[in-house]
Amino acid sequence: MSKEKLADYIFSRITKAGVQHTFGIPGDFILPFYAAQTRTSLKTVVMTHEPSVGYAADAYARLRGLGVALVTYGAGGLNMVNPVGLAYAEESPLLVISGSPETRFRKGKPHLHHCVKTFETQHDVFAQVTAATTILDNQTTAVEEVDRVFSTMSRTSRPGYIELPRDMVNAEVETDADDAGRADRALQASAQAGQRQSARKEAIAEIVDRLKHATHPILMVGVQIRRFGLKDAVIALAEALNIPVVTSILGKATFPETHPNFIGNYFGQFGNPVLKQYVEKSDCVISLGAVLTEMETAGYTAKLDETNLIQINHHETIIGHHVYHDLDLNDMVRELLDVIGGKLEPTVRFEIPNIPAEAIQHPAGQKKLTVAGMIECLNQLMDKRDFSVVTDTGDCMYAGMSLKTDIFLAPGYYVSMGFGVPAAIGAQLAMPSLRPIVLVGDGAFQMTGMEISTAVKMGLNPIVIVFNNQSYAMLRFIDQQRDYFDLNGWDYVGLARAVGAEGERADSKENFARALDMAVKSDKTFVIDAMLEKEDISPTLRRLTDHFSKKVKAAL
Amino acid sequence: MSKEKLADYIFSRITKAGVQHTFGIPGDFILPFYAAQTRTSLKTVVMTHEPSVGYAADAYARLRGLGVALVTYGAGGLNMVNPVGLAYAEESPLLVISGSPETRFRKGKPHLHHCVKTFETQHDVFAQVTAATTILDNQTTAVEEVDRVFSTMSRTSRPGYIELPRDMVNAEVETDADDAGRADRALQASAQAGQRQSARKEAIAEIVDRLKHATHPILMVGVQIRRFGLKDAVIALAEALNIPVVTSILGKATFPETHPNFIGNYFGQFGNPVLKQYVEKSDCVISLGAVLTEMETAGYTAKLDETNLIQINHHETIIGHHVYHDLDLNDMVRELLDVIGGKLEPTVRFEIPNIPAEAIQHPAGQKKLTVAGMIECLNQLMDKRDFSVVTDTGDCMYAGMSLKTDIFLAPGYYVSMGFGVPAAIGAQLAMPSLRPIVLVGDGAFQMTGMEISTAVKMGLNPIVIVFNNQSYAMLRFIDQQRDYFDLNGWDYVGLARAVGAEGERADSKENFARALDMAVKSDKTFVIDAMLEKEDISPTLRRLTDHFSKKVKAAL
Repeated sequence: MSKEKLADYIFSRITKAGVQHTFGIPGDFILPFYAAQTRTSLKTVVMTHEPSVGYAADAYARLRGLGVALVTYGAGGLNMVNPVGLAYAEESPLLVISGSPETRFRKGKPHLHHCVKTFETQHDVFAQVTAATTILDNQTTAVEEVDRVFSTMSRTSRPGYIELPRDMVNAEVETDADDAGRADRALQASAQAGQRQSARKEAIAEIVDRLKHATHPILMVGVQIRRFGLKDAVIALAEALNIPVVTSILGKATFPETHPNFIGNYFGQFGNPVLKQYVEKSDCVISLGAVLTEMETAGYTAKLDETNLIQINHHETIIGHHVYHDLDLNDMVRELLDVIGGKLEPTVRFEIPNIPAEAIQHPAGQKKLTVAGMIECLNQLMDKRDFSVVTDTGDCMYAGMSLKTDIFLAPGYYVSMGFGVPAAIGAQLAMPSLRPIVLVGDGAFQMTGMEISTAVKMGLNPIVIVFNNQSYAMLRFIDQQRDYFDLNGWDYVGLARAVGAEGERADSKENFARALDMAVKSDKTFVIDAMLEKEDISPTLRRLTDHFSKKVKAAL
Repeated sequence: MSKEKLADYIFSRITKAGVQHTFGIPGDFILPFYAAQTRTSLKTVVMTHEPSVGYAADAYARLRGLGVALVTYGAGGLNMVNPVGLAYAEESPLLVISGSPETRFRKGKPHLHHCVKTFETQHDVFAQVTAATTILDNQTTAVEEVDRVFSTMSRTSRPGYIELPRDMVNAEVETDADDAGRADRALQASAQAGQRQSARKEAIAEIVDRLKHATHPILMVGVQIRRFGLKDAVIALAEALNIPVVTSILGKATFPETHPNFIGNYFGQFGNPVLKQYVEKSDCVISLGAVLTEMETAGYTAKLDETNLIQINHHETIIGHHVYHDLDLNDMVRELLDVIGGKLEPTVRFEIPNIPAEAIQHPAGQKKLTVAGMIECLNQLMDKRDFSVVTDTGDCMYAGMSLKTDIFLAPGYYVSMGFGVPAAIGAQLAMPSLRPIVLVGDGAFQMTGMEISTAVKMGLNPIVIVFNNQSYAMLRFIDQQRDYFDLNGWDYVGLARAVGAEGERADSKENFARALDMAVKSDKTFVIDAMLEKEDISPTLRRLTDHFSKKVKAAL
């Protein structure tokens, strides 16, 4: 056993997880932890507003397996509940570390600044939106508590919350340097012991049997495959079976879109109608690492026959009407690969159909810029594979599904506006080799877009494309034209310049192509103000809003 | 009994409370309620980001007695937990109305978009930061539930949360038009019955006795006096006694600062040293409507001898060591006024000392702009009484305490950054006769300052003064120079122009005076980029950071 400071122990767990950056905004209760951070190799990224801290750290987590937000108590922590909720819903391991009042003051009336009802208010709020929480108010149990939060996060790929009273930051704790992660391993071992091996064998046998009898199976790859680091195994599995692969909106780019087995993004009746038809006539759909939420099923328009459906996700496997609880996704994928890659007869290999992508074309002769025109220009850029795609919610996300990319970050299920620009900061720091193309609606840009300032400060260079239709366009299509859907017009290029970024306005396809070219040639953060007609939306968004408008109109 | 739609009933309760504006951002779950709002006389103010919605509605609540925020589920509601926490801490009756999924969908797995863990997640979060919550999922009890939330808010002057499933918006409910507020009155009556009248009489007698024997009493007026509409009664009380009056930071301007009885803002050792000495040698301090939090007592540096202290607040009265629970502030103030205004001997009248305000002067010969110079210029403007003062937290708030004003809105206890600009929108709509002077640090402006766009859209014209020292200055003084306290420089004038506002930069006192003059002459939202030296802070902030730095340094 050796002694170290609690802060140093926490930072060592963070760096061992492969993290090189933390995101946050300093404030008095977290200052000693920020100071302790200067003893480490971690770089800290101070954003302008806490909601952005959450989005940036979430994006980092999606690409690195852990993202860390350092915030102060109350005014800091409570200002990022929504991004943490997003991370919970979309299974991103975002760790919130919040400073808080000294343990010795946490008695009597909570009349300290940044307090709401009780000293536990913030903790109790975060308990609602995270998988594990702790208040490190006890020197003896602190290390174990930190380990428990990290373990739960890594097991569930969901957010955790650590509250660090100011006088505990440099408290001496006993750790075993040779045995860091002991609690993790103990937990994993016990989880594995609990793995009903015979249940897994039975499930695998059922799946193999179904595959043997299937003529047109489909593999639907979901976001958990990326979250749990199974991408390569799933590629091998797809190749061994030569099975066609689709991804969902949240799972987009979890499987390489240039891979010959990949046939498109399946999105029920919101998506490509040809793909929809092909998928829904399949006699064996294997959904691997996807939770079939409302968004993954395109508002439950996905017509997937339950009897032909196999769902393997991180906590259960469902084969037709058989539910197997507590089967580990990792074990399932690897055992499937063993069985299929090795023992399955070579006859069980399938054909990859040729499903053309839905044509999205700028109308010939149209002088004004269109969403279709932008997608055309951007897809030419995508061929270079030098870019990641980060979208906000809105048509930017639905149109963005048409981009061929290996990295696609979007709030595809929880659909929180404001994700795009801050997430691009997290994405570029997590994957410095890819320059983010950020697609963001004007409504969402008005929430968090000024975070381009942080990109400038950090020397990053995302290309931010503002879908400028001066309205909450989606809401107009879901409801009807209302004056409260109109947005104040902003000069986005002027704003970019005011914070040290560059920018160009584009109101035609030619202008847009030129602006994009300038952006690519620039090494700075670059904003393209893409002026769109109010009625111009992507086919996907049109089908989606047609669907959702029924619910709203039923309630009007 | 008559039937009406639930939405109409809620809106009628809102308008009857004197509210003319609601604040929010529309989203699919709240759209039917927005549509229902168009049947009313209410104007809706769509802000750019939910944290701002909370601040604007909070400011409106502080001035009108109720502020209303209309937001969508999850991505909307969970994005304003922090401003609601602020409103709770500072006793502002902010009502959050959030749309949510239809009652008929709230079964099974919560896989709808904007959902986190369960359908109750958002409700359970808001239960931590409000005084009353309800989910209106039952047609029979909905009216009673709405009444309960309104009653609790008006009794506690604290936030409430109403969750409105989308299919309940236009549900028919039975209301009694002649008896709206029946539940309120029943509750009030029962509360009054519970008022231990004899306890109140005893407390009043004790107070009168102490006053009879006091030679230098002080009345400390706190924010609850405004919250519970007791300002005029307190002025009458002060005049009847001819007692000197001080206010605290949160209570600033609760008592008119031009009133002859007013002697200053008492702020322990952070404030005017001469005033501190006078207050702390008082033999009878009556704190009326103030909770003696860490901030109200200037980090507990206020040396108020408990034996000489009388605290009357909305839930209890404490006289020396006697605690009287459940005495109503309103009853106490009015009965005190009755007794003192009528029966007390005329000899019990005191003298008002002459306490000079702490000198804040721009140093002669200093070419650069200083905080003191700005305060000097602004105080000349204050004489016109045409302005309210709204501050963010930071030196803008502490320096702002030196402005003589009748309306001062600031996050004086919870100290949440980002309050200033959005709060000014709420303030000007609540009190259209007063033009807001907004004091905001550059760090806070970078959080929510772009809300100037909403001011422009609404035809408002706050004068926004950005204390531009390119850093989180307070943190530097609490800790030390750290690179993570430095802010990216923004061209605030350029930003103002990019969203349709006006602006000027000022780097000397003369420039500032000229910019202020231009701002006053303009009828537009006007931003003054006040360029300050990094080391230039107000005397109050210097004393405050000296105090708080001890806590941080102890934990480094």
